[in-house]
Amino acid sequence: MEGALSPTQAGSAPTERPDALSALVSLLEPDLEACNRTIVARMDSPVKLIPQLAAHIVAAGGKRLRPLLTLASARLCDYQGDRHIALAACVEFIHTATLLHDDVVDESLLRRGLASANAVFGNQASVLVGDFLFARAFQLMVQDGSLTVLAILSRAAATIAEGEVLQLVTQNDLSTSEGRYLEVIRGKTAALFAAACEVGGVVASRPEHEVAALAEFGMNLGVAFQLVDDALDYAADQAVLGKTVGDDFREGKITLPVLAAYHAGNVEERAFWERTIEATEQTEADLDHALHLMARCDAIGMTLERACGFAAAAKAALAIFPDNGLRRALVDVADYTVSRAR
Amino acid sequence: MEGALSPTQAGSAPTERPDALSALVSLLEPDLEACNRTIVARMDSPVKLIPQLAAHIVAAGGKRLRPLLTLASARLCDYQGDRHIALAACVEFIHTATLLHDDVVDESLLRRGLASANAVFGNQASVLVGDFLFARAFQLMVQDGSLTVLAILSRAAATIAEGEVLQLVTQNDLSTSEGRYLEVIRGKTAALFAAACEVGGVVASRPEHEVAALAEFGMNLGVAFQLVDDALDYAADQAVLGKTVGDDFREGKITLPVLAAYHAGNVEERAFWERTIEATEQTEADLDHALHLMARCDAIGMTLERACGFAAAAKAALAIFPDNGLRRALVDVADYTVSRAR
Repeated sequence: MEGALSPTQAGSAPTERPDALSALVSLLEPDLEACNRTIVARMDSPVKLIPQLAAHIVAAGGKRLRPLLTLASARLCDYQGDRHIALAACVEFIHTATLLHDDVVDESLLRRGLASANAVFGNQASVLVGDFLFARAFQLMVQDGSLTVLAILSRAAATIAEGEVLQLVTQNDLSTSEGRYLEVIRGKTAALFAAACEVGGVVASRPEHEVAALAEFGMNLGVAFQLVDDALDYAADQAVLGKTVGDDFREGKITLPVLAAYHAGNVEERAFWERTIEATEQTEADLDHALHLMARCDAIGMTLERACGFAAAAKAALAIFPDNGLRRALVDVADYTVSRAR
Repeated sequence: MEGALSPTQAGSAPTERPDALSALVSLLEPDLEACNRTIVARMDSPVKLIPQLAAHIVAAGGKRLRPLLTLASARLCDYQGDRHIALAACVEFIHTATLLHDDVVDESLLRRGLASANAVFGNQASVLVGDFLFARAFQLMVQDGSLTVLAILSRAAATIAEGEVLQLVTQNDLSTSEGRYLEVIRGKTAALFAAACEVGGVVASRPEHEVAALAEFGMNLGVAFQLVDDALDYAADQAVLGKTVGDDFREGKITLPVLAAYHAGNVEERAFWERTIEATEQTEADLDHALHLMARCDAIGMTLERACGFAAAAKAALAIFPDNGLRRALVDVADYTVSRAR
């Protein structure tokens, strides 16, 4: 399937972030609105702190990228029902739960440019509301009634946790291989992208190879997305990215830009990375020096190049579907995923 | 399985069980051993920190009370298959996940007399391994294939989170009513007891009123259990209880002994509770004074009295089942729940 649809054939000109997703959004407007209503209705609880905290993160300017993937995949498969609405909400709940737990784990104070939920409501509430949303996602799936969907999303949830733990284990460890790094991001990010797309094919009762193609699209898109995210942590300014630049550096997170610069470095430069990333002994000037070293070996460019490869694989996976507005919009999403960093 | 604990290490490792539970255990020995093997097998992951951390808590001398309830309920209903084994493991996974998250939330350093997982492995790993076990529980349920079971346990999981958040909201608030307090413990503790029992009736395909009776037994047993736990936090010594005495006091947790003493107090005594529980401004001598005030109004005795009432309701719910060894053992569990504090 690889090469069936080259980036040039399929790709529209990379546009600014809002435009790239807005094609998809406008094609799915009623679905997305219904999904948003389901999200708001089902995150409610007699314990009012739950919807309050959930609203803080759900309303914090999320792109709804993952539920959009479920909605788009179902419609790309010509699905005419409405089961995909609640399942897209499940996907967003699982995503939101992991965000809440991530912010606790990372002790982040910012999320999409706003104060993170744990900074406002405390770690305790963030952990527990994450648990609530996770459980609520499963309740919604049970109401939908498909054991196949339940299998896909429960497996994805376990894989996400495994990816996050693996990330914890490799933290501060510069001997982490690139393969291991990719394993981390496939788990912590791409598994949910893949599951979100797969579920769309399942509700449409499509044959196995089409469902697999959707999962393939999502998996590659997710890897591209995370690679770009990891590049942006060293390349974007806070106003655009909505998170503090250099967060990953300060935490000693092992990402591809760091691995690239570390492997390209001489003895002295490796010692710099070992001090800052492994021992996290950092001074004010270290981030600038890290950026300088990355620029010299084009670590960011190389990371984005890899992301382009995964985006191309994502687009290629869509080739078996009819060439319509939705497919083109999904191709644009793959392009946007990469172009937002340029 | 490599790297994980063997069943003997983690599973059937006989910890000191009170006599009351050992009757139940000996009646269910093969089931419990099979359940322990499932627990060990299914908490495994290529990410070795996961089984390591999970083993720490799973092997920490837990009584396996909740999975025993599932096993016992199924057998009380004359169930002859083996689905109850994996479902009992699910119940234990959900319980373990909530323990891991609780300890993070409470910042507890001890769990059952041993260092808690978060104290050994850190908060981050505890949150994420909790998430993994929760997801794994759902994967096991999906393999079982019963949407009814999935509905029961996903609802229980949401209710547990609601109960925990409600506990957070009422923390340090002496205006919390007894009804609200009961709502908290029904959610955070009793909902899983109820679900554990209910599932046993469901796999045995028993009529609705029998399944409801099992849920009723579990709910009342769970409330009794938590009431006694809350009493023990002011009454037991650490060697017996396996947790630091006065934990609840130091956190300003609103429990029935505190509410009872607060409401029985004069103006000066109320001011004491407001300072220590609401403002959590405490000196060394305050715990002793709190115990003295509780002794004077018999707050512990009153709490245990209430627990006895719930234990009696639990036993009454079993009356519709045949009077056999299992039913008698479950009655003993209800008695033990209360008697462990005497």
